[in-house]
Amino acid sequence: MDASPLALPFPSMPPIAGLRLATVRAGYKAWDRDDLTLALFSEGTSVAGVTTKSRCPSPEVEWCRAALPLGRASALVVNAGNSNAFTGAAGRQAVEAIAARVAQSTGCAPSDVFVASTGVIGVPLPIATAEAGVDAALVAEPTGWLAAATAIGTTDTFAKGAMATAIVGGRTATVCGIVKGSGMIAPDMATMLGFLFTDADVAAPLLQAMLEEANAATFSCITVDGDTSTSDTVLAFATGAAGNAPLASRDDPGADALAAAIADVCRRLAHLVVRDGEGATKFIEIAVDGAESDTSARVVAMSIANSPLVKTAVAGGDANWGRVVMAVGKAGEPAERDRLAIRFGDTLVAEHGAAVPGYDEAPVAAHLAGNEVRIAVDVGIGEGRATVWTCDLTHGYVSINADYRS
Amino acid sequence: MDASPLALPFPSMPPIAGLRLATVRAGYKAWDRDDLTLALFSEGTSVAGVTTKSRCPSPEVEWCRAALPLGRASALVVNAGNSNAFTGAAGRQAVEAIAARVAQSTGCAPSDVFVASTGVIGVPLPIATAEAGVDAALVAEPTGWLAAATAIGTTDTFAKGAMATAIVGGRTATVCGIVKGSGMIAPDMATMLGFLFTDADVAAPLLQAMLEEANAATFSCITVDGDTSTSDTVLAFATGAAGNAPLASRDDPGADALAAAIADVCRRLAHLVVRDGEGATKFIEIAVDGAESDTSARVVAMSIANSPLVKTAVAGGDANWGRVVMAVGKAGEPAERDRLAIRFGDTLVAEHGAAVPGYDEAPVAAHLAGNEVRIAVDVGIGEGRATVWTCDLTHGYVSINADYRS
Repeated sequence: MDASPLALPFPSMPPIAGLRLATVRAGYKAWDRDDLTLALFSEGTSVAGVTTKSRCPSPEVEWCRAALPLGRASALVVNAGNSNAFTGAAGRQAVEAIAARVAQSTGCAPSDVFVASTGVIGVPLPIATAEAGVDAALVAEPTGWLAAATAIGTTDTFAKGAMATAIVGGRTATVCGIVKGSGMIAPDMATMLGFLFTDADVAAPLLQAMLEEANAATFSCITVDGDTSTSDTVLAFATGAAGNAPLASRDDPGADALAAAIADVCRRLAHLVVRDGEGATKFIEIAVDGAESDTSARVVAMSIANSPLVKTAVAGGDANWGRVVMAVGKAGEPAERDRLAIRFGDTLVAEHGAAVPGYDEAPVAAHLAGNEVRIAVDVGIGEGRATVWTCDLTHGYVSINADYRS
Repeated sequence: MDASPLALPFPSMPPIAGLRLATVRAGYKAWDRDDLTLALFSEGTSVAGVTTKSRCPSPEVEWCRAALPLGRASALVVNAGNSNAFTGAAGRQAVEAIAARVAQSTGCAPSDVFVASTGVIGVPLPIATAEAGVDAALVAEPTGWLAAATAIGTTDTFAKGAMATAIVGGRTATVCGIVKGSGMIAPDMATMLGFLFTDADVAAPLLQAMLEEANAATFSCITVDGDTSTSDTVLAFATGAAGNAPLASRDDPGADALAAAIADVCRRLAHLVVRDGEGATKFIEIAVDGAESDTSARVVAMSIANSPLVKTAVAGGDANWGRVVMAVGKAGEPAERDRLAIRFGDTLVAEHGAAVPGYDEAPVAAHLAGNEVRIAVDVGIGEGRATVWTCDLTHGYVSINADYRS
């Protein structure tokens, strides 16, 4: 498949001390590409994570949830091509087998091995295939970010990564992240699979707090199709190799800088997922303010972002702001028609319950002709605000999803 | 536009005594068709109605809401081609002008005139055009159901009507209904515009109760695109010409029969809206049982019905039941992965948290190849149940909506 027209080049990202990456071809599908990624961490690596709120999570999600409270990680295994979700006891056994294989080989506890899988739902991950893949990865040559970002992908059309640095107690800490996902994207807390790695020395509870805060404003604010995956997982690993004085509290020097770097990487990764939204031709930012609360603003923004009529209007370059009114109205949040104001790009198109006098559609049409579209709504009743990101709904989405599994 | 492949022929429906229908071409758009429908009622006609829960309703919706408590109707005016929603003071004045014009001519109170409009959002209904149309309709020759059902349509591809009869106190009462709508359909209580007419003699409060009960299980259980219109309105008018002993209580003889007839007409009209869903090629019934409550079952069913991934899978004839698992999981309602059971047509495809042993996709693929698809989910934790109806998501939907307004 051609790369999304919204694709960005993969950035230059440095290695993270204390992290070793490898990718191999396990062969989960009949494809000629690496589909198993192994990350090995140095001793003392802390971990944080957020997982899907789906009531039907994959066994990988359950495994990670159980391991996260321990706060330490020795390895991460990512399988692409099979999500292993809704596969009953066979699926659980596959996850246990992978963790046991890595633990046996590296001498860590199985609970220090994190596992994530992505792909079709309902087919048990083949245990022998996974074990052979893990064995190969354990002895494979180390590889780089681009190879790993590519190997974790499924319907993704380009590899997605982001990095940032922070000065932490006089040391430079680096945060690198990779992410995959382009459909079944309405993370209730995380996109399908995202992984952050830093050499900062940070205790797991603080890393968890930083990740949750970053996630709330980034992965939880994107949607491609409103469909929340069974497998959404974002994990952050901190090797401590940067040599900073260990961070344990948000008040420690450098903690704010690290949190900002983590949030920055999360935001950029989240935007990349939208840019690889299935069939996407336009990146859409929806900013809502003047709502009753921030929570209410997010509901309104997501109502707009998930509206098929708004998304198809943007696809068609149609300045159909009436559909934005519809989406605000259906959100069910406090709103008053006659206090709403709506902007496309920098142009005010409607306020006081009607189109602005002498409304000129030309600048709006010009804005919509580009591939980055901004829609702003002032609800006009409070101080709540939220910004979310989505993409348009096109023939490409229908083509991809009416024929994905076969 | 060609008729939907799911279209049904317009049924034979008798006149309702006490009702006079007329249609004219007001010219709300540059089209060569009637677009204003006038219904005049005999004295003593009672009325009931349900309107959108949108926070940004049209002035027509506000007008009807204000008039409904009075319980009586002399006339109904339906404008097609312009919804008059989000048009500020100009829109409100247009509705008042229409009601005043009919009231002046017929000698009724303006509040006895019900008004509904459908079409593009954000353009004030032109008052002079509406007044001239009303004047013409007041002197036009009476017309029949098919003409009225056609004149109220916009992007509809076929005229939609349904009828039923009830024996009420020894008299036969007839219920006829017409409806329009094919996009922006996720009625939180009603489809875009639906109108029922009966010659039964029934007091407005009882008619209202019957309509609300019928609506909850019919119009409120359909979705085309999850987008709730600003203008959704269903009105029921009862002329009393059947001569039955007036019904005032649900315990009166014949009240149950009339309620059943109203529910029957509502259900058939609701199904017709789904059959005319924009771009629809398959009619989908989603039945959920075993949920914690009926309300919970409806949320789960609607989560499935509004999932773009489920809808595109059905469009592609793909037995991708994993997407049903996803949609159950994202609904946020009580569910346990390992108690779910999923059926396509008559075939059990998954239970106990995995595909059934020896799952044979052939009968499922055959079922999906037809144009009426049934998906049944047993949540497995309670007694709650709900059935909803939707259509598939196709290239046709994108084509229609990426270029609707222009």
